Amino acid sequence: MDTSLYNSTPPPYKCSRTPLVNVKVQNNWVVNIVWTVEKDLAHVPYSPPRYPVEAMVKRSQDFYSLMNQRRTVRFISPEPVPREVIDNVIHTAGTAPSGAHTEPWTFVVVSDPETKHQIRLIVEEEEEVNYRQRMGDKWVNDLARLKTNWIKEYLDVAPYLVLIFKQTYGILPNEKKKTHYYNEISVCISCGILLAALQNVGLVTVTSTPLNCGPQLRLLLKRPANEKLLMLLPVGYPASDATVPDLKRKHLDDIRVHI
Amino acid sequence: MDTSLYNSTPPPYKCSRTPLVNVKVQNNWVVNIVWTVEKDLAHVPYSPPRYPVEAMVKRSQDFYSLMNQRRTVRFISPEPVPREVIDNVIHTAGTAPSGAHTEPWTFVVVSDPETKHQIRLIVEEEEEVNYRQRMGDKWVNDLARLKTNWIKEYLDVAPYLVLIFKQTYGILPNEKKKTHYYNEISVCISCGILLAALQNVGLVTVTSTPLNCGPQLRLLLKRPANEKLLMLLPVGYPASDATVPDLKRKHLDDIRVHI
Repeated sequence: MDTSLYNSTPPPYKCSRTPLVNVKVQNNWVVNIVWTVEKDLAHVPYSPPRYPVEAMVKRSQDFYSLMNQRRTVRFISPEPVPREVIDNVIHTAGTAPSGAHTEPWTFVVVSDPETKHQIRLIVEEEEEVNYRQRMGDKWVNDLARLKTNWIKEYLDVAPYLVLIFKQTYGILPNEKKKTHYYNEISVCISCGILLAALQNVGLVTVTSTPLNCGPQLRLLLKRPANEKLLMLLPVGYPASDATVPDLKRKHLDDIRVHI
Repeated sequence: MDTSLYNSTPPPYKCSRTPLVNVKVQNNWVVNIVWTVEKDLAHVPYSPPRYPVEAMVKRSQDFYSLMNQRRTVRFISPEPVPREVIDNVIHTAGTAPSGAHTEPWTFVVVSDPETKHQIRLIVEEEEEVNYRQRMGDKWVNDLARLKTNWIKEYLDVAPYLVLIFKQTYGILPNEKKKTHYYNEISVCISCGILLAALQNVGLVTVTSTPLNCGPQLRLLLKRPANEKLLMLLPVGYPASDATVPDLKRKHLDDIRVHI
C-alpha cells in the first residue's frame, strides 16, 4: 500500500451515511480515510426498464407536452398543498447527478407565515434597490414585458417557499472541509429536475434569483457558512386569475443542430 | 411616449420568431425596437391541469421512483436510438425557464461517426492532461471510487453525443449584442430537464464537463464565438453489461429543512 497517499494522523473511521475518500494531505484540505472499502467500492450491474420504440416515442411526446405547458407563474394561490407532495418533489430533485457524487444541496422549505413575511421584507427591500439602481436601465427594460417589479406578493401568499442553497464545500465529521466540485452546476441541474417534478403535479413557481438577498436570508434561516442561496421558488397552485406574458418558445430547429 | 427610451436611428421592425425589447441606447449595447407591441405584450390567463390530492401524491411518488432509478452510466450500447425521441427530449429541455426568457442554449446533437471520433480525440487528449496534471491528486482521488480515467470509449460508441452550449450573449438581426442574464444557470436548469426526459424514455448518459476542451470543440462543431461548451452528454441505451458504482443517495432529511 502506498502510504504517501494517506493521512497518517487520525485513526480511520467511516461515516455511516456518506462514503469517504482517500486523499493525500495537501495544506489544510484533509479528509479522513477509509482504509478498506473506498477504493473497493463495488460496481454493480445496472439495467433499467427498457421500452419498445413506439412507447419511447409516445413517452417522449407526452413528457414534452407536459413540460411545454409549464410557465413561470407569479400569481400563486394561498390554498394549502399536501406536505407529502412537496417532500416527494424535493426528494426527486435530490436524485440529480452531482460532481463526484457530493450532492451539494440544501432545500429549505418554509411554510411558517412569520418567516415567509420576514423573507418578503428582506427580498423586497433589496429588489427595490435592484430595480431602482443596481440592475440598470437596460435590465429593467428587458424585463418590462414581463411586468415585474420589486413587489413580491407571492412570498406571503404561496403556501411554501423553497430556498435552494448550494453547499460551496462540505463539512466532514472531523470538521475538515470536503471539496464540492461543480457545486453550482450540480444544484442548478437539480433545480431543473425539481421544476419537472412540480409541473408533473400541477404546481407552479417562479425560479427567482434575488440579487443581494443571499447573506441576509442565510442568517434568517440559520444556514451555515458553507451554504449560499442560489434560488428562491415560491410554490403552490396557480391563483384562479393567474396570468402569464404571452411569450413564445423557440422552434426546435432554433435550439438544436444535428451533425 | 417617452422617446428617450428609444433608439431613434434604425427603422423599427419585428423579428418573426423572438419578441424584441425596448431599451435606451447605452454605449454599444443597442437592440432594435418594436414600437407597438413589446410594452403591450399581452398577459393571458393561465390555468394548467389540476389534479385531485390523491392523484398529486401518486404522481409525485411515481415520478420520484422513476427519477430515483436514474444513474450516471458510462457504458453505453451502440444500438441506434430513434431520432424522433432525441428531438423530443431536446425540445423538452428547451421548455426550461431562462433569464428574461432569453432561451440561451444550443444543443448540438452528433451522430456522424467521424465527428464523434474527432470529439473523442480532443476530449481524451485534454482529459489525460487533466488526470495527470491539472486536477491534482485530491480530485483524482475523490473520483477513484467512480473508476473514471481519461479513456472515454462512449464518445465513439454512443449513438448520439449531445453537446450543450450556453450562449453567453445573443446576436440580434442587426448584429448587435443581446444580454443573456443568468445564461449558465438557465442552461444548467435546462440540462436537468433534459436528464428527466432521458430517464423517462429509458436512455442513459453521463453529465460530463470536459475541462479545457471547450474552445476546440466549439471550432470543430463550427459554433459561433458567443457559444461556450457547458456539458457533453453521450446518449443511448445502457450496454448490456453496464455497471454503476454502488453509491447511495442522501436521505430526504439530509437535504431538506422545514421551517
